[in-house]
Amino acid sequence: MFMNENFLLKNETAIELYECIRDLPIIDYHCHLDPAAIAKNARFQNITELWLGGDHYKWRLMRINGVPESHITGGAPDHEKFTAFCATIENAIGNPVYHWAHLELKKYFGFDGVITSENAAEIYALCNHQIEADDFNVHNLLKKSRVEWLATTDDPADSLEYHLQIKNANTPGVPKVLPTFRPGYVFEIDKPDYVVYISRLGKAAGIDITDWDSLLAALSQRMDFFAEAGCVISDHSLEPPVYDPDARVIDAEYAMGKWGYGDSLSAKEINAFKTQLLLWLGREYHKRGWVMQLHMAAQRENVWGGDAKVNAGFDCMSDVNYSLALAHFLRDLELDSFPRTILYGLNPTSDDMLAVMAGTFAGGGIRGRVQWGCPWWFNDNKTGIQKHLTTLANHGLISTFIGMLTDSRSFMSYPRHEYFRRILANQLGEWVENGEFPGDINRLHKIAADISYLNVKEYFFPERNMC
Amino acid sequence: MFMNENFLLKNETAIELYECIRDLPIIDYHCHLDPAAIAKNARFQNITELWLGGDHYKWRLMRINGVPESHITGGAPDHEKFTAFCATIENAIGNPVYHWAHLELKKYFGFDGVITSENAAEIYALCNHQIEADDFNVHNLLKKSRVEWLATTDDPADSLEYHLQIKNANTPGVPKVLPTFRPGYVFEIDKPDYVVYISRLGKAAGIDITDWDSLLAALSQRMDFFAEAGCVISDHSLEPPVYDPDARVIDAEYAMGKWGYGDSLSAKEINAFKTQLLLWLGREYHKRGWVMQLHMAAQRENVWGGDAKVNAGFDCMSDVNYSLALAHFLRDLELDSFPRTILYGLNPTSDDMLAVMAGTFAGGGIRGRVQWGCPWWFNDNKTGIQKHLTTLANHGLISTFIGMLTDSRSFMSYPRHEYFRRILANQLGEWVENGEFPGDINRLHKIAADISYLNVKEYFFPERNMC
Amino acid sequence: MFMNENFLLKNETAIELYECIRDLPIIDYHCHLDPAAIAKNARFQNITELWLGGDHYKWRLMRINGVPESHITGGAPDHEKFTAFCATIENAIGNPVYHWAHLELKKYFGFDGVITSENAAEIYALCNHQIEADDFNVHNLLKKSRVEWLATTDDPADSLEYHLQIKNANTPGVPKVLPTFRPGYVFEIDKPDYVVYISRLGKAAGIDITDWDSLLAALSQRMDFFAEAGCVISDHSLEPPVYDPDARVIDAEYAMGKWGYGDSLSAKEINAFKTQLLLWLGREYHKRGWVMQLHMAAQRENVWGGDAKVNAGFDCMSDVNYSLALAHFLRDLELDSFPRTILYGLNPTSDDMLAVMAGTFAGGGIRGRVQWGCPWWFNDNKTGIQKHLTTLANHGLISTFIGMLTDSRSFMSYPRHEYFRRILANQLGEWVENGEFPGDINRLHKIAADISYLNVKEYFFPERNMC
Repeated sequence: MFMNENFLLKNETAIELYECIRDLPIIDYHCHLDPAAIAKNARFQNITELWLGGDHYKWRLMRINGVPESHITGGAPDHEKFTAFCATIENAIGNPVYHWAHLELKKYFGFDGVITSENAAEIYALCNHQIEADDFNVHNLLKKSRVEWLATTDDPADSLEYHLQIKNANTPGVPKVLPTFRPGYVFEIDKPDYVVYISRLGKAAGIDITDWDSLLAALSQRMDFFAEAGCVISDHSLEPPVYDPDARVIDAEYAMGKWGYGDSLSAKEINAFKTQLLLWLGREYHKRGWVMQLHMAAQRENVWGGDAKVNAGFDCMSDVNYSLALAHFLRDLELDSFPRTILYGLNPTSDDMLAVMAGTFAGGGIRGRVQWGCPWWFNDNKTGIQKHLTTLANHGLISTFIGMLTDSRSFMSYPRHEYFRRILANQLGEWVENGEFPGDINRLHKIAADISYLNVKEYFFPERNMC
Repeated sequence: MFMNENFLLKNETAIELYECIRDLPIIDYHCHLDPAAIAKNARFQNITELWLGGDHYKWRLMRINGVPESHITGGAPDHEKFTAFCATIENAIGNPVYHWAHLELKKYFGFDGVITSENAAEIYALCNHQIEADDFNVHNLLKKSRVEWLATTDDPADSLEYHLQIKNANTPGVPKVLPTFRPGYVFEIDKPDYVVYISRLGKAAGIDITDWDSLLAALSQRMDFFAEAGCVISDHSLEPPVYDPDARVIDAEYAMGKWGYGDSLSAKEINAFKTQLLLWLGREYHKRGWVMQLHMAAQRENVWGGDAKVNAGFDCMSDVNYSLALAHFLRDLELDSFPRTILYGLNPTSDDMLAVMAGTFAGGGIRGRVQWGCPWWFNDNKTGIQKHLTTLANHGLISTFIGMLTDSRSFMSYPRHEYFRRILANQLGEWVENGEFPGDINRLHKIAADISYLNVKEYFFPERNMC
Repeated sequence: MFMNENFLLKNETAIELYECIRDLPIIDYHCHLDPAAIAKNARFQNITELWLGGDHYKWRLMRINGVPESHITGGAPDHEKFTAFCATIENAIGNPVYHWAHLELKKYFGFDGVITSENAAEIYALCNHQIEADDFNVHNLLKKSRVEWLATTDDPADSLEYHLQIKNANTPGVPKVLPTFRPGYVFEIDKPDYVVYISRLGKAAGIDITDWDSLLAALSQRMDFFAEAGCVISDHSLEPPVYDPDARVIDAEYAMGKWGYGDSLSAKEINAFKTQLLLWLGREYHKRGWVMQLHMAAQRENVWGGDAKVNAGFDCMSDVNYSLALAHFLRDLELDSFPRTILYGLNPTSDDMLAVMAGTFAGGGIRGRVQWGCPWWFNDNKTGIQKHLTTLANHGLISTFIGMLTDSRSFMSYPRHEYFRRILANQLGEWVENGEFPGDINRLHKIAADISYLNVKEYFFPERNMC
């Protein structure tokens, strides 16, 4: 019974629906995969490097379980790290990593058993044996995962050399790899190293950034460049949104000028700069047909000065308020220059607020224009996905939802789509079995396929037909 | 199985309980029906006007589905709008409007099928045929809905002419129509058109409003007038509550005086005015035996300047904090001058906070004195109602709950009470079948009937026996 | 079926698991029992005194039900109070007090029926008959409850005379009674009666408190004294955490000095004092191997000036934000001087935030170092516990959870542990029956026993083996 073929499928309709969407391709429109590893078709030393090397979800659980940092991100031997992970996960009842880990070992290594400390050595050997084989590499992992295209996360100053390399190679079976334009540092005019970043950005753009206009010119150049490399998506981490509805363009010009002279800025001037930059970028995204992603309510200022030398796995959720700032920003973009937008909130207390906000800014005859993005990060678990689906259905049309992404650094994380699709099929089936929706299987199949694959395809390429 | 007679009733006790409360009358103590339409016993051109004409719940879904505004609130032909709605709702799995729409067409038109784009023309014809019949009018819709009395929402400056007309006509079978005293504009001393409103209010009261005392005198006059028209309920939309526990009456007098001289007020002065006005009104409501409704955490400043010419369907939830301001206000009313009060929060993050607050300010020997009001607006859906019932039961006595209202502009929205009663019966039944409460059917029936009808009757007319 | 032996156990695995943990001892690491009553082995006049005398949970329900204060905390005869309670509880469907009350009467009095107003007289007589027996006293109630040790809540200035008396008596079968160091008043430098408290504290410590250093010296003395009496736990009620990451020690010294001169302090100075005091105490707790409890988001400023003469049962939940202040405090304690810490939030909107924060500050090789504390106060109910378990499992390792406490003033509240253990067993069983975890009964039994008893034992006495 444990994680068998009907895992999470609790009714007949669910089983039938999952059957229909199980093998649909995956579009991973937001992840943190390393484009260099894809360009080089990287291989791996062993399962510890491949599976534990960059996964802060697993690190957090190990820390909670009392594993010393040496066996998490430190210098302990790889087989000891692997054993420490197994001894952690074996009791992780109810945690999504428990399910992901089993789905991943099953999909990529055919391991059908239970992960325990007793089985650790056996699993370690089984996986490493396969990893040593010639055909175990990044390209084959992506093919096996049925990924149609994916979008990495990239700074405007990035050279995108690996994206271009992948694009030019055009290797059959390898998914398209699109860059995402994430201009986070451009906003940090209040940070001491802003001058370093601006210089880097200017160099990348071939433009000497001295004022507001040259900043926008440089960003335009980078957006053109990103577009050539296939970019259709931007991303902002707003922690939280800073927005002053009274700020004018000349206030931003003034702030940038003042910064140029080395003067320190007031809070009001900083906010004016951030406000106008956000508005300008939003309108640019609309002009270019790009999607705007807004990630909100992460709290990243918690880094230990302790024995953990890596800066990962120490973030948390913020409980700050932002509904008004966000609404003002979206309103001021105005309907006619408003890009397709995805709103992600890290604290589930914002679930209903964001789901409703997405409906508030619907309009212009564009189906699913504003999305309440899928359960992000800490919310990517069974009850989080279930709550997302019911909350979204309560406040809008779940049939227009663009569904899941991995947000992952790992080439083995694609079973998260399986996890999502099972929960989706189960929820749709439950509504039918409860008499809340007719058992019209064609319509249900269409809804399930739309959410799993077709909506996202249409959302990012509404006019073109790239894939 | 789809929405059959046992819709949402998942156990035997639930079926038995629903049977007992199904046909109880409805008291709709908070709605936005047009009293003129009731006074005139209005008729309708067609199902589009009747059903889609003023319903922002439906508009939001259509916008999300990519329907152009022309086919929502614009000039498209009525049959095209209706078809666009059907093409939207057919995929609205999990959304409350899906259920409401089916319950409404069944109750008022006997339509027993599924709403789809394929069926749109047939449904359009079926409904319009009945609408054309002589006896299809507002009075008969209300009678068919079993409404005992309802309360509209009215400004203190309103003439209440239609309320008086309905009262005087005293047409057999037509429910009593009570006005609700909603003095929202009286608080907006910080808005430029306050002078216009104050002049209108003064005229209605026959009092020249020049200072704090004459303002209160005018409001007293209006409350007397509303009371004559049957008013027993007030309503405030506090977005969020503004309350300064240090503000004194003389601060409010001073603020009003300053305003009278055309001077602009500081934030502190504005808050003092709002604080003292709220306190004075609260005590007046208590004196008059009126109920005080407080609606909190709507965010209404999101209106598009876009192609939607109507200002409806663009609101959202606020995530602002207000537990302290609210508690201070309720505390300062003091137990002896504290009216029956209903607390509504739009953002479900306040659910537990408000349910607990209602218990905090219980007292004085009055059963159910402070209510955490029923799931409001965006929360009026299956999971929202379920969460409301369990949260309320966790923190208080669900048996003292005054239950559902429609909050609606539509004469066809009364099946929302059916929806609520089914979910209520199911929840009560579930507790019994889980062994969490004895299967004492008489007691359960009493609890269900109290929540559905008897508590609300007693709550608004504790000493009288009006209906 | 009503509350039978399988109450809340909905599957076979659950029944099997509960069987294994049912009779484990109880460690009540946070309660408000009166140490004098334990030292004196108090007896009771009747069931009203014993059961209703200090229980604000019950008072709140009675107030909501319209019982006059005379019959709650006033002077009405005890049998009338008891009847008023029964007439309240009989309709409290879905409320935890309904279940607690039945579990308590069953456990301590063998009453197996239903509490109703009809049965009130019979129950009153039944209980009082037993209360009159010689062996009905506090010691026997605690023995019957299988309490291994418990921790009361005590002010640093307290003499702990009853704790020492109990310790010295060392009566066989009577649980150890540990004091908890709760230095709430020490922070209230902004309150007018701070001078009174400081004088009391100084006297208790035998130190003349005149400045920051002598304050710390006095607190050190009190901590030494508490440690001798068995203390291993501290407690802070942060409503919310006040924390200024820029405050320095000299700012606190300056603030205390200024206070010493009778000057009033600015908000910034007050915050600096509170910040540095909290940091200093946190590091002291670490040095002494004590656990630090942080209780957050209670709102206690709502007290009526009305006819309720008791200050209990009038608290509520705050919706104030505190994720950033809390994270800064925990970060600044630094990994090497960070005590075991338990985070409790009163408003369930903080559930995910706190569960994640506990994982964020995990580390140092200590299993379960930071705990998201069990459902506190208003959250201690069936759905609250269920949500706690799934939320904790989503964001961390439920297997490291230290489980339940009573937080109670009543010697009859130990069935809350039974309530918790049943819900825990049911949740674990549900995961297994859903195929989400293997049906490995030994491992499951270990997890259930860890959460119910073994983790808490280890958490407070990691090196010693006291009990």
